[in-house]
Amino acid sequence: MSDPSSFCSAEQFTTRHLNLYLRVDFSARVISASTALTVRCLQDSLTSLILDTKDLTIKKVSLNGQEAKFSLGAAHSFKGTPLEITLPSPLTRGQEAILEICSETSPKSSALQWLNPEQTAGKCHPYLFSQCQATHCRTIVPCQDTPSVKFTYYCQVSVPKELVALMSALSDGDFIDPHDCKRKIFRFKQNVPIPSYLIALVVGALEGRKIGPRTTVWTEKELLEASAYEFAETEKMLKHAESLVGPYVWEKYDLLILPPSFPYGGMENPCLTFVTPTVLAGDRSLASVIAHEISHSWTGNLVTNRTWENFWLNEGHTVYLERRIDGLLYGEQFRQFKALGGWKELQNSVNTFGATNPLTNLVPNLHEVDVDAAFSSVPYEKGFALLFYLEQLLGGPDVFLGFLKTYIQVFAYKTVTTEEWKTFLYSYFSDKVEILDKVDWNGWMHTPGMPPVQPKYDMTLANACIKLADRWTEVRDADPFWSLL
Amino acid sequence: MSDPSSFCSAEQFTTRHLNLYLRVDFSARVISASTALTVRCLQDSLTSLILDTKDLTIKKVSLNGQEAKFSLGAAHSFKGTPLEITLPSPLTRGQEAILEICSETSPKSSALQWLNPEQTAGKCHPYLFSQCQATHCRTIVPCQDTPSVKFTYYCQVSVPKELVALMSALSDGDFIDPHDCKRKIFRFKQNVPIPSYLIALVVGALEGRKIGPRTTVWTEKELLEASAYEFAETEKMLKHAESLVGPYVWEKYDLLILPPSFPYGGMENPCLTFVTPTVLAGDRSLASVIAHEISHSWTGNLVTNRTWENFWLNEGHTVYLERRIDGLLYGEQFRQFKALGGWKELQNSVNTFGATNPLTNLVPNLHEVDVDAAFSSVPYEKGFALLFYLEQLLGGPDVFLGFLKTYIQVFAYKTVTTEEWKTFLYSYFSDKVEILDKVDWNGWMHTPGMPPVQPKYDMTLANACIKLADRWTEVRDADPFWSLL
Repeated sequence: MSDPSSFCSAEQFTTRHLNLYLRVDFSARVISASTALTVRCLQDSLTSLILDTKDLTIKKVSLNGQEAKFSLGAAHSFKGTPLEITLPSPLTRGQEAILEICSETSPKSSALQWLNPEQTAGKCHPYLFSQCQATHCRTIVPCQDTPSVKFTYYCQVSVPKELVALMSALSDGDFIDPHDCKRKIFRFKQNVPIPSYLIALVVGALEGRKIGPRTTVWTEKELLEASAYEFAETEKMLKHAESLVGPYVWEKYDLLILPPSFPYGGMENPCLTFVTPTVLAGDRSLASVIAHEISHSWTGNLVTNRTWENFWLNEGHTVYLERRIDGLLYGEQFRQFKALGGWKELQNSVNTFGATNPLTNLVPNLHEVDVDAAFSSVPYEKGFALLFYLEQLLGGPDVFLGFLKTYIQVFAYKTVTTEEWKTFLYSYFSDKVEILDKVDWNGWMHTPGMPPVQPKYDMTLANACIKLADRWTEVRDADPFWSLL
Repeated sequence: MSDPSSFCSAEQFTTRHLNLYLRVDFSARVISASTALTVRCLQDSLTSLILDTKDLTIKKVSLNGQEAKFSLGAAHSFKGTPLEITLPSPLTRGQEAILEICSETSPKSSALQWLNPEQTAGKCHPYLFSQCQATHCRTIVPCQDTPSVKFTYYCQVSVPKELVALMSALSDGDFIDPHDCKRKIFRFKQNVPIPSYLIALVVGALEGRKIGPRTTVWTEKELLEASAYEFAETEKMLKHAESLVGPYVWEKYDLLILPPSFPYGGMENPCLTFVTPTVLAGDRSLASVIAHEISHSWTGNLVTNRTWENFWLNEGHTVYLERRIDGLLYGEQFRQFKALGGWKELQNSVNTFGATNPLTNLVPNLHEVDVDAAFSSVPYEKGFALLFYLEQLLGGPDVFLGFLKTYIQVFAYKTVTTEEWKTFLYSYFSDKVEILDKVDWNGWMHTPGMPPVQPKYDMTLANACIKLADRWTEVRDADPFWSLL
């Protein structure tokens, strides 16, 4: 199965490691990069290969130190520009080689937001952050920008010395840039293989405060106090997640609270979750965003959708786990209440897209579709609804958790498709095939609109809310003051 | 912690992949090899590096295609000869490079047994098999011959075309050698990172028969029928193992039944367990060897001892799992009986070595000690006794299995030391620290002779044996015929 959102073929070759050097230039709004990819050849003989790029200037390409010819193809409206590299000597099956590329980003790189000092809390220093999911890593460096390829990375980032750089990785120290004493180099290592969309970078006047044994919260100092308070329960959530699905393998779980222009609620960048400052409610009431991002440490980051058409595997399972954590924190009735809220959210999305829109399929066809245009709560909430429905069908929360744990163990460090997920479901519940055969798989997966069946929800908390709302309505109707409004 | 059994430093650099080409020459009893190591630099600047070799002729070394100077150090009596390579340009932290070496083995390579046709069952064809554990891989190819380094491998093996080659990996097809039509090339891929001691090769007149969904038994055709019968329960054992510790990640579990000169009962080479033909009892009574080798798929091959001083982590846990499988197959009383047998076996070893011999320590010091000379049942049975003792101390088989499963998940694909194991044990049983603190750790781990405490054993089956033996003795004493003997 090939990835319709990428130009490069993961069947021909795969990337095993990225060794990056990034120089961040705030005045030009450009990152100069040297990218060394360790590639492994997967076919009998490989004479050329294609990498994804978008709005990049390519300066030089070499293979094992030997200069290689390259050409940029036609620019596609949203997929970017394929970089075709002719190898100086062909690679054989099983052979690895070092492919080195010097490149430069464009100021309009869709992965990068460059903020002026005025756009920050501190007003004194510029700020840069990245958002690579789904297909924007190619606007920072040339790569196999498909979730089907996972690699480790090492990165050195040179930035103005008054700023701090952080990445989706473990810190490996920092020092004054030997080429420019006004700059500092920060080093990072990510030794767990990740897909390109989990590469992340932030540079700014950041400060950190330790709020747990493996968690530091990072933000501008103006937000540090509020952030440390808001996310104080992170370790408790991590422990709950581990009790559900097994050990956390990423060592650190840091949080970065971004400026308000960060476009998502949270982004599960490994070792460093990115979080919107709009979650700073002051009362920890919006912390389920963190439960969601923590859950991605297993579903998404460890077990990864092979293409974006299978995005529900990342998000559906993560919402399911998030709500299991909610259940452990606030009780089963609360989980049921959140589950019901998810169904309403799904209804909203289906209404917005239209009930016959193929993008409301659980598994959409993304050929010539921009992944960002397809983004909605459908993979989250239709995915969750399917899993919640299966939980009820197959024997309840404990039984279903057994499946989820084993699914994670089997596909950890790998990528997975919907078909593989379904095959595994059938093999795990081999004693319940008759029940599974009654599921309307086509209706759930390949049909637009609301799911064919609605799961059951415990209505205790929902009814309490409805009752309270009814009382307001009754009071209003009975009181002549309200009728004046 | 460095490995006293290897010349190369796993702190300076690590090997991530081996791409091998091996040409097996039966007449000269030599393997010519081209070995491409993908190495990653772990220190700020690396200008030279050392690989392990033993009895190898080194012909050429290059880094990323550039020729590199090299020299062989002084030969050590059992550790072999360090190969020092001067890098044409230094490597930086996080950087990867391809190190290519052309070499040739010696006919006396301690990893390889070359058999004449007369020494085989079929009497017509020569036969070659390898045994790399513990420190013999260096006699086949130059490598970081330490269990602290794990890598994937791809291999092409050229052999006379009437023979079959198999390796500790998945088959990736075969074809006539384009350079010599009398030869055939077999290709293999191992995509799970393994330590060097798990590289394995066999070449002979082998035939295979499928005996399970993921198992083919391989041997000379003269032994095929008997082997297929003897190991028919392999899939059942694999399923039991999975029910205990989680999914089997190696895809295939094949068996190779070797000629009688194979020096061990079994060797857990991944995807292809090597087995002595002496297990062919005809009644499946010796199949617990297979339960042991299957268990190594988790403890040893997935979670690997970082150095041979920690060998008990491989073997103690594997014997523990083997006996859990025995328990599932034949009942808890049988497990207890086997456990008691292990204690007797340990007593034999301690008697042989002498109760004050430091090699009877659970964690011996192997500085300037040949690993093969230190080999005994101590790591197996003292290791098992410790785990069996802890099982009883900490709440029984179910509770202890929870620990073992999590231990495997945490350290899967990694290496582990005794100290890390102990730290993890304390963190898993953080509610039982008082109990753990009463364990005489120094007595168990760093003191020669029998353990400080004997676990309890259910004596039902042992007593039945003793009673039967007593009856024989009584009959003999009562019967004048016996007293004549």
